[in-house]
Amino acid sequence: MRVKFPLMAIGLEVAMIVLFKLFVHYGNDQNTIQVNSTSKPNVTDSFLELYPFFQDVHVMIFVGFGFLMTFLKKYSFSSVGFSFFIAALGLQWATLIQGLLHSGGRKFDISIKNVINADLSTATVLISFGAVLGKTSPIQMLIMTILEITVFASNEYLVGEIFKASDIGASMTIHAFGAYFGLAVAGILYHSDLTWKHHNKESEYQDCPQLLFTAGTLFLWIFWPSFNSALADTGQKQYRAMVNTYFSLAACVLTSYASSSLAENRGKLNMVHIQNATLAGGVAVGACADMNINPYGSMVIGSIAGIISVIGFKLLTPFFATTLRIQDTCGVHNLHGLPGIVGGLASIVAIAMGVSDTSSMAMQAAALGSSIGTAVVGGLITGLILRLPIWEQPSDWDCYDDSVYWEVLYSVLQNPGQQCECGNHNQLKPED
Amino acid sequence: MRVKFPLMAIGLEVAMIVLFKLFVHYGNDQNTIQVNSTSKPNVTDSFLELYPFFQDVHVMIFVGFGFLMTFLKKYSFSSVGFSFFIAALGLQWATLIQGLLHSGGRKFDISIKNVINADLSTATVLISFGAVLGKTSPIQMLIMTILEITVFASNEYLVGEIFKASDIGASMTIHAFGAYFGLAVAGILYHSDLTWKHHNKESEYQDCPQLLFTAGTLFLWIFWPSFNSALADTGQKQYRAMVNTYFSLAACVLTSYASSSLAENRGKLNMVHIQNATLAGGVAVGACADMNINPYGSMVIGSIAGIISVIGFKLLTPFFATTLRIQDTCGVHNLHGLPGIVGGLASIVAIAMGVSDTSSMAMQAAALGSSIGTAVVGGLITGLILRLPIWEQPSDWDCYDDSVYWEVLYSVLQNPGQQCECGNHNQLKPED
Amino acid sequence: MRVKFPLMAIGLEVAMIVLFKLFVHYGNDQNTIQVNSTSKPNVTDSFLELYPFFQDVHVMIFVGFGFLMTFLKKYSFSSVGFSFFIAALGLQWATLIQGLLHSGGRKFDISIKNVINADLSTATVLISFGAVLGKTSPIQMLIMTILEITVFASNEYLVGEIFKASDIGASMTIHAFGAYFGLAVAGILYHSDLTWKHHNKESEYQDCPQLLFTAGTLFLWIFWPSFNSALADTGQKQYRAMVNTYFSLAACVLTSYASSSLAENRGKLNMVHIQNATLAGGVAVGACADMNINPYGSMVIGSIAGIISVIGFKLLTPFFATTLRIQDTCGVHNLHGLPGIVGGLASIVAIAMGVSDTSSMAMQAAALGSSIGTAVVGGLITGLILRLPIWEQPSDWDCYDDSVYWEVLYSVLQNPGQQCECGNHNQLKPED
Repeated sequence: MRVKFPLMAIGLEVAMIVLFKLFVHYGNDQNTIQVNSTSKPNVTDSFLELYPFFQDVHVMIFVGFGFLMTFLKKYSFSSVGFSFFIAALGLQWATLIQGLLHSGGRKFDISIKNVINADLSTATVLISFGAVLGKTSPIQMLIMTILEITVFASNEYLVGEIFKASDIGASMTIHAFGAYFGLAVAGILYHSDLTWKHHNKESEYQDCPQLLFTAGTLFLWIFWPSFNSALADTGQKQYRAMVNTYFSLAACVLTSYASSSLAENRGKLNMVHIQNATLAGGVAVGACADMNINPYGSMVIGSIAGIISVIGFKLLTPFFATTLRIQDTCGVHNLHGLPGIVGGLASIVAIAMGVSDTSSMAMQAAALGSSIGTAVVGGLITGLILRLPIWEQPSDWDCYDDSVYWEVLYSVLQNPGQQCECGNHNQLKPED
Repeated sequence: MRVKFPLMAIGLEVAMIVLFKLFVHYGNDQNTIQVNSTSKPNVTDSFLELYPFFQDVHVMIFVGFGFLMTFLKKYSFSSVGFSFFIAALGLQWATLIQGLLHSGGRKFDISIKNVINADLSTATVLISFGAVLGKTSPIQMLIMTILEITVFASNEYLVGEIFKASDIGASMTIHAFGAYFGLAVAGILYHSDLTWKHHNKESEYQDCPQLLFTAGTLFLWIFWPSFNSALADTGQKQYRAMVNTYFSLAACVLTSYASSSLAENRGKLNMVHIQNATLAGGVAVGACADMNINPYGSMVIGSIAGIISVIGFKLLTPFFATTLRIQDTCGVHNLHGLPGIVGGLASIVAIAMGVSDTSSMAMQAAALGSSIGTAVVGGLITGLILRLPIWEQPSDWDCYDDSVYWEVLYSVLQNPGQQCECGNHNQLKPED
Repeated sequence: MRVKFPLMAIGLEVAMIVLFKLFVHYGNDQNTIQVNSTSKPNVTDSFLELYPFFQDVHVMIFVGFGFLMTFLKKYSFSSVGFSFFIAALGLQWATLIQGLLHSGGRKFDISIKNVINADLSTATVLISFGAVLGKTSPIQMLIMTILEITVFASNEYLVGEIFKASDIGASMTIHAFGAYFGLAVAGILYHSDLTWKHHNKESEYQDCPQLLFTAGTLFLWIFWPSFNSALADTGQKQYRAMVNTYFSLAACVLTSYASSSLAENRGKLNMVHIQNATLAGGVAVGACADMNINPYGSMVIGSIAGIISVIGFKLLTPFFATTLRIQDTCGVHNLHGLPGIVGGLASIVAIAMGVSDTSSMAMQAAALGSSIGTAVVGGLITGLILRLPIWEQPSDWDCYDDSVYWEVLYSVLQNPGQQCECGNHNQLKPED
């Protein structure tokens, strides 16, 4: 950590600046506005019309995902801090790589849609980050960000431009891809001695992170309609994408509460299920969000996603950790992997039922296959690269521990004399 | 809790899906967009123009109200978790019941305004939830949600369609209604042995919930202009509703701080007052938010509301709890009840002063009366239904206790050996 | 505190209401809308188009700045509570003073831009508040708010109307001004016996405020593009301001992480650096945000700002506190002062490079000079006024202590019998 990480970060930023100078320009079409602003050509409309969608997605990426990972007792600084870093790096690289792919390697203009796409791309890395959370060094994350976004952009180009498949909410290209990429990396980086109940992991009831975690869930849940409709065609399709996501998420909440209660003993609710499964409806409806599936159709999809997600947490995560030797820290497979597959299948069924002619069943299936395939292959290769002994991977003992990467302050260190240090209650002691 | 709650939740979701299939359709008018998107008919305008208002309201419902109830020391999971559940159920039911009321029982289209209305309707239930918070089972809340939204929609239809009264910010139909409905339920469900100072209730200074509670207040305060203007007529009225709410809330902050300081001993401030009374200005200005009352007029309304709300907390809440035997957990009467009445009266005065001809004094009075009347009657009936011994109402001892409904983890349970368990400070112990 | 503060608050609110009645009117041009809404004159466009920008800025002011000050162990109520009060008072006064300055003392109309400007003005006071945080009484803050906004509005008028300088994101008029005004006040109010390591100051790792603080940072970071583009000319300039801020902030994150790691021992990261320096890119790009500096140009500015901000925290803050006897509680000089100057210089360089002809190098230099000059002079005078012994300035001992101004509840006070009070863990004790 001493100098490697800072030098790599600065080096990358310099490289970004050079590449941006070479390839990135403003969207010049906005110039027309100043000439006569009354006519309001569509291009500004799209900037001003999509700007609120951009900001909603921006909140999801930087607040939602960040706080969705704060549940680890001693890893909240790293969860929030490193996802912030990853996203800031990822959006720059994604802007470049996506722009170059679509411009065929020539200079390209930036529109509001490039910016939204850049944000969405970082979501993919943040999802994978959730699978390896607490077990990787900042340098490893930095490398994973660059590699994954490159693979992601290639697959997205394949799905969108070659297959011309329909995946407006990115159930397959972002959620399924991000989950399986992360699981593949986690599998390669398997810590044999890392018990599931690590001494640093358990968060207690009423620890603040538990509630902030919930805030992360809520902000993701609230703005998911923007996530799924931001890039849809203006008008009916965008309107449908928003309405379908809204109702899919609402239905998903009811079924995930019900499933959690049925899954736990004495019918109690498990906050981890609630914080994750309630979002599965947004993931699963993504692929056919802009199709004519009707509100009740999206509610069916959301209901199924909620149930499957809770089942995943109850049965699959332990199975992955023990049998498959894949330690999925945040359970991204249950929130993004399974619901992403549900989304892909739902889009195939939807097209089979003739609610959309924008794509074919075969192309949707190809999109699902390539998203999972490239994710697994890309993840395995990335994992092998990350296993090289030069990236300062933390020891099992140092996993899930902020104090390895952050200057942290414990009150006992301040007042060594004290037998029992009770956090905020210094003010109750006479010497104060 | 074992199976009753999950089965009811799943059953309700299935019923919603069936009813949506029968009655709910997309707003077809958006189809015109794809034909020629340059003309931009008003209908898409309204979708894209109102979408940011929708998202603001969405944040208020799911983050604002949720975290506004996290002040109970051992009930934060339930406060956030159950308000999330209630809102997700409520918005589906509200979409149906409101749509059917306005379509006369026929199939109806969903526009962005239906979605905003659905969100607003759930606010009514969340307000009532605040009065019974900690004293009802999930099943009771589920039933209350269905019953209250039905009564609410009927009263709203009466006020809007029959009386044609003016209540753009819903001071009467949502805030006053929600408060008195909740108080009536709380009165019926009175826990005779439930002392005001329950062992689970007190939240300590510097407990995290105290600050999250403040976050709830701030998000409600920030987006309230959208709450009051989302459904106003585009143009001058919507602009007025936003400006009036903005200044009413600002004025309300000053008077509520002043009143709190005067009400407490040695002029100190009471955070509970601040967290609630500062919002009273948004409630009170609601009924005449789109009228020509001028910014200074809205500031007068906001100033009065802040003072009355603090007085309510200081004098009325204890009186309600002891003499009237109504235990108002969150003090919704002070934040929504009294300011809602102020709002209704303000609208009568405003019309008397001739600032609006959209309604008459008599109709505004009728709207206020019917909102409070139907709320009280509906609340009493709902309370009697909820008192049936089959809904698993928690015992006095189990009130305000998450561990009755949630899997919770205490570190002492993990490390029984320890004399003094200091929350986050395990890492300071040698054995770690 | 007993009666002085509440009476002053009420008196001020009454004065505001009277002044608003005399001078403030609705923007009547919106009336045209109701006549024929199809034509959509620009004025409503601007209201509906700018409304999302307003709400983004509103979140920054009331959530971002508020929680950015919650890091003091025993001062979180005051940090959030008083910044809320200051902002609510400030936006009313700013609306008046700015409107009167531009109308030449006559009645004026309120448009969405006035409201956005009012919010932005309060940012200036909140920045200065960060420098004196914990060391001033509510009465002192109230007086500072009125005085500072008056000076700020005068300087902004000078810069914008007389110099016609370009400072769309207010690097100079808000950030540099607010920082140096606050530092001047802090210098006058120097507490000789107030050690830098005050017993009330240190916040521990895993205290909730640490994470909420991060939430404040993230909300500011997310919405900064709106802060810098809200008042830009619609079209290309607004689009540029948003894109430049987006990339400047992203670049700033990488360099501030790198600098923090290099600055701390063993390459660890310092959360205080991350929480502040990552925002410096938004400040520094402000002055030339709408110029044709290209995305890579904004990334250069952001990268420099991040590095300078961390250096400021590491070297300048201690130097200020000891040698200059200026105690900058939140380090606003590093987040707003230095990056604000960088922004001013960047705008001079940008004009020298011919990317904008809206202003001249001389006028930009004059704007920077007058912003810092009026801030220092205004701050010194304000500080001298605040030092008058009648404003209940807290003693050194009472600094950074909520219990001086707020009713706070400690569990030990509830259960005096206990040997060791462990915050949230009452529920583990038998008697509960």
